[in-house]
Amino acid sequence: MNTYSKIRVGVAGATGYSGMELLRRLAQHPGADVRLAMGSSSSESKRLPALKRIWDAPIDRLDVDRLASETDAVFLAVPDTLSAELGPALVQRGPRVFDISGAFRLRSQAERQRWYPHSPDPGVPVTYGLTERYRRELATAPLIACAGCYPTAAILPLQPLVVANLIQPGVIIDAKSGVSGAGKTPTERTHFSEIHGSIAAYGVFSHRHGAEIQQEVGIEVTFVPHLVPLDRGILETIYARLQPGVDADAIERTLTAAYAGSPFVRLTGSELPEIKHVAHTNFCDIGWRVDRPGGQLIIVSCIDNLVKGAAGQAIQNFNVAFGFDEELGLA
Amino acid sequence: MNTYSKIRVGVAGATGYSGMELLRRLAQHPGADVRLAMGSSSSESKRLPALKRIWDAPIDRLDVDRLASETDAVFLAVPDTLSAELGPALVQRGPRVFDISGAFRLRSQAERQRWYPHSPDPGVPVTYGLTERYRRELATAPLIACAGCYPTAAILPLQPLVVANLIQPGVIIDAKSGVSGAGKTPTERTHFSEIHGSIAAYGVFSHRHGAEIQQEVGIEVTFVPHLVPLDRGILETIYARLQPGVDADAIERTLTAAYAGSPFVRLTGSELPEIKHVAHTNFCDIGWRVDRPGGQLIIVSCIDNLVKGAAGQAIQNFNVAFGFDEELGLA
Amino acid sequence: MNTYSKIRVGVAGATGYSGMELLRRLAQHPGADVRLAMGSSSSESKRLPALKRIWDAPIDRLDVDRLASETDAVFLAVPDTLSAELGPALVQRGPRVFDISGAFRLRSQAERQRWYPHSPDPGVPVTYGLTERYRRELATAPLIACAGCYPTAAILPLQPLVVANLIQPGVIIDAKSGVSGAGKTPTERTHFSEIHGSIAAYGVFSHRHGAEIQQEVGIEVTFVPHLVPLDRGILETIYARLQPGVDADAIERTLTAAYAGSPFVRLTGSELPEIKHVAHTNFCDIGWRVDRPGGQLIIVSCIDNLVKGAAGQAIQNFNVAFGFDEELGLA
Amino acid sequence: MNTYSKIRVGVAGATGYSGMELLRRLAQHPGADVRLAMGSSSSESKRLPALKRIWDAPIDRLDVDRLASETDAVFLAVPDTLSAELGPALVQRGPRVFDISGAFRLRSQAERQRWYPHSPDPGVPVTYGLTERYRRELATAPLIACAGCYPTAAILPLQPLVVANLIQPGVIIDAKSGVSGAGKTPTERTHFSEIHGSIAAYGVFSHRHGAEIQQEVGIEVTFVPHLVPLDRGILETIYARLQPGVDADAIERTLTAAYAGSPFVRLTGSELPEIKHVAHTNFCDIGWRVDRPGGQLIIVSCIDNLVKGAAGQAIQNFNVAFGFDEELGLA
Repeated sequence: MNTYSKIRVGVAGATGYSGMELLRRLAQHPGADVRLAMGSSSSESKRLPALKRIWDAPIDRLDVDRLASETDAVFLAVPDTLSAELGPALVQRGPRVFDISGAFRLRSQAERQRWYPHSPDPGVPVTYGLTERYRRELATAPLIACAGCYPTAAILPLQPLVVANLIQPGVIIDAKSGVSGAGKTPTERTHFSEIHGSIAAYGVFSHRHGAEIQQEVGIEVTFVPHLVPLDRGILETIYARLQPGVDADAIERTLTAAYAGSPFVRLTGSELPEIKHVAHTNFCDIGWRVDRPGGQLIIVSCIDNLVKGAAGQAIQNFNVAFGFDEELGLA
Repeated sequence: MNTYSKIRVGVAGATGYSGMELLRRLAQHPGADVRLAMGSSSSESKRLPALKRIWDAPIDRLDVDRLASETDAVFLAVPDTLSAELGPALVQRGPRVFDISGAFRLRSQAERQRWYPHSPDPGVPVTYGLTERYRRELATAPLIACAGCYPTAAILPLQPLVVANLIQPGVIIDAKSGVSGAGKTPTERTHFSEIHGSIAAYGVFSHRHGAEIQQEVGIEVTFVPHLVPLDRGILETIYARLQPGVDADAIERTLTAAYAGSPFVRLTGSELPEIKHVAHTNFCDIGWRVDRPGGQLIIVSCIDNLVKGAAGQAIQNFNVAFGFDEELGLA
Repeated sequence: MNTYSKIRVGVAGATGYSGMELLRRLAQHPGADVRLAMGSSSSESKRLPALKRIWDAPIDRLDVDRLASETDAVFLAVPDTLSAELGPALVQRGPRVFDISGAFRLRSQAERQRWYPHSPDPGVPVTYGLTERYRRELATAPLIACAGCYPTAAILPLQPLVVANLIQPGVIIDAKSGVSGAGKTPTERTHFSEIHGSIAAYGVFSHRHGAEIQQEVGIEVTFVPHLVPLDRGILETIYARLQPGVDADAIERTLTAAYAGSPFVRLTGSELPEIKHVAHTNFCDIGWRVDRPGGQLIIVSCIDNLVKGAAGQAIQNFNVAFGFDEELGLA
Repeated sequence: MNTYSKIRVGVAGATGYSGMELLRRLAQHPGADVRLAMGSSSSESKRLPALKRIWDAPIDRLDVDRLASETDAVFLAVPDTLSAELGPALVQRGPRVFDISGAFRLRSQAERQRWYPHSPDPGVPVTYGLTERYRRELATAPLIACAGCYPTAAILPLQPLVVANLIQPGVIIDAKSGVSGAGKTPTERTHFSEIHGSIAAYGVFSHRHGAEIQQEVGIEVTFVPHLVPLDRGILETIYARLQPGVDADAIERTLTAAYAGSPFVRLTGSELPEIKHVAHTNFCDIGWRVDRPGGQLIIVSCIDNLVKGAAGQAIQNFNVAFGFDEELGLA
């Protein structure tokens, strides 16, 4: 291994699904020296049997003072209400913060108050943490609001097409997600017997990720998420009307140009991607079909919600923020 | 039990998923006397361990002469190329035929040649077998082309709304289906390890059920099916633009009126249905949401593809065709 | 339908998985008139969307007085601590009680105190509710402790073999169960993401169903249950040493004789059963293999834990207790 | 990265489940230079969308001459009948061969003829490829018969206990496996709808992995595998009788000593392992419980069948054979 100058990092919320994925990958990351791995409350202290030989220490109770004084970077994998409080507090005391909750993603105060009522103005600059779109800003960003799982799979294909004026407003995003995206807290909704053999739409017209997508894409979208019986992965089927005369080639040229230097975006053209191809990776796979020039565009976009939609995204942002190779620790 | 005068029935294709579901239900149906249970080729003869004590005899090889001479009604659960041949031949020799393949569903010869190139004009009158829409025609129909699984879940909610002019053309149907809908023949596509933990769109702009839906609904639709890791069940999320001024109440009134006498359509209003609620039943559950009058309508519609989408549908048609109670044998 | 003289029944705990299965089947049972469907606490009142058109009334809060005064039979699908209290109280006030908890299954007071410490002596006669073994006792039994799910799949094959002295003590039962057996209360253990893609042994040397099996079988057993990623169904692989000279034929003769009059036990011989064959049915399928006379016997036994292991079992007991055909309402 | 002197490797059978896992890991292995990735027949040439950006070249048709002349090491992930032919042929022409089929695992000619009738004596020395047991032999081995998936999870816990004479003969191994172990060729057995919601025992008294386990463990075992509805992973529940006086501490001491220097064996003591903890890793997790000294020992052992049971195992053997760190490329 090369000798990387290692960044001292801490993880808060390491017992959740995203937090455990973060800890597993950071513990093996050549540029990270994990100093602290904590839970999301002051009472927690447990071991993670899946991480034996990778992270053998117990997961400590949350201790903000130690995070502030003993690390250069903190990854927050805690509920958004806790992130809203911890994020700015940590930044003011030193570490750069990579937050994977939604607390800081919405720039409009009105939208934030609607969808995250416990998230006041953070008082420090916030960068939206989707590496492919904000590489330059990440270099110096103190507080990174890592992009949400559903938004990542929608923004990556849609944003370049909107900027190039290839599609009409009024996009429909039909999203299917694995259950780990709902978090580890047991609820009736996430009981195995409720999910197995079933599918359900939820949050119709009322999911806060719709607002996040609209903020980054810049046009109105209809966003309907569904819970589907698998653990990891999101597939989004996106329906858009092309502007007159626009054809499949124009879509391909625009997306190819947009992601020429992005190692984690894989364009699959008319061969549509499947969740199986991206599970346990940081890739976002994007394919598309067009029925006729100026007609209907159908995009299929896939990610692993715990990697490119959470832990991998945060590490990718971390890599760019600290000058590492963008792919470091994410192979 | 009442003494029903029993109809002599035969089942062809009883070893497939739909055929086995048919045989299980017909064997316990008070109005059916199952005389013949056959496979879909001349070489097949096997027992079905799941049906022990329900249907103990072996599944015989296919014998058209016996079907023609020993039954009053034949259920065809065979490939559409075989149905295209058997259906008219049987009708001309006596039995009424309930076909669950797609061979006879498309009335337009052009459409039929495109999607079912091996289905010539049947030469006998064909009735589209969606009980809720064709009750009267079923009473005397000789050849019933039972509605397809995807079409059933789309036509039932859409057709009344189109007739009442409540929605605009250009409907999008995002369909998610369990794997039994792909049939029992093993392929790489249906291998457990390809489906488990994954989702995939398929047949984009090229699935023949799109033509069937358009025939019955009367407007253009974009139809995209997805394979999802469950065995039975279809959930369709349907996106439509309301005509100006139309609101959720108008949708409810229209659907309520349309299905007042239909025991197997359950309207769930703004509580959206889930596959879990309809699995192993003949119900079609339909719920909907509207963002604002004249705005976006989202319908969620669920069926069990092997029951209301295949075997149950055929039996419901049979019940009406022979004057039984519509629900007989389907509780 | 024949006119059965209907028994007035009540269900307590109708919102759980077993309770909902009970209510669905009793609502369509020709000999049962469901008067009351209640939850398992005094605060519950909800509707069950899956049962729309089958049971449309809300599930009321628990009301013991009404159960006692308005029914002839009460089905208890509540936690064993609550059953321990309700069971004898109801019996003393009139109704016969079919309890599907474990509260009354263990006859030995010492064993009961060890495994069900909140279950005092019931003070009324208790009959173990495994129809195949206690048909005669059921005819007049006031309080029926329906057999547990794991025990049912073990006792049915083992008990006749022990009585006939065909196998040696020291039987090993490796049981695999779907998750609905763990009940509907959400826990980390039953979270979809913990179960999907995993298997785990639990309760090794400490599962109370081991004691129940030993009580009915009469020999020592080692019982290890596993949680497996499916919703419904139990498969038990049972390892026993044959007594000297005993061969596969002796096993077959003994089991065939034992279950000649039992419609729900299906012996499959050397073709081993699978959960798929019994799901959603009241069957117990039993197959076996022997390596050589006097050698190793391997039995595979399958049930649907919510039907033959819970709701179906209770209804089968009810049928015999009230003189109905044993299969009524269970087809 | 350090500069490793890279070994030129080839993979045959790269389109199967094990082969694809091999190729993915070797393409990112610092000590391997993948020169050739081939299918398992002469007609195959396809791309693997899941490996885009990792292995972009097409998978060529099988070409033995190129494997022999252009590589130092060949990984065979092909059917055992093909391995039986290719293995010795390649070794004689130069490369060292890591075979993950069963063709060469059984040393006894009689056993090999029974279970692998198309595998003649290889004519070159064969080393059984379970790194933990054969580290020394691997250093110079020309032909490595990588241990089977089921045997790996059984041999690792049992072999040291037998050597130390802690357990009695007559061990029972109840194994549960994900479906990827059955290979990628579609069959009725591996159809999604046959596996989902079901469990089935198979190969009772007739699975060739039983012979392989007995060879390495040295005592008679009863081995019963089951197919379970998950993609990857094996869990084995092993039942053994302790020798008089042996207790849990003796088990722990023996296993701890046996695996002190083995990075991929994790002993979990009385906390039993779960498949979830080892999925996508090269770990074998082993836990155990004892009811009383001299009594029943229950071991639970887990691996990912495609990693420690196939591709990871082969790479671990390769690492030791070529003098790399045992964990290289397996983190």
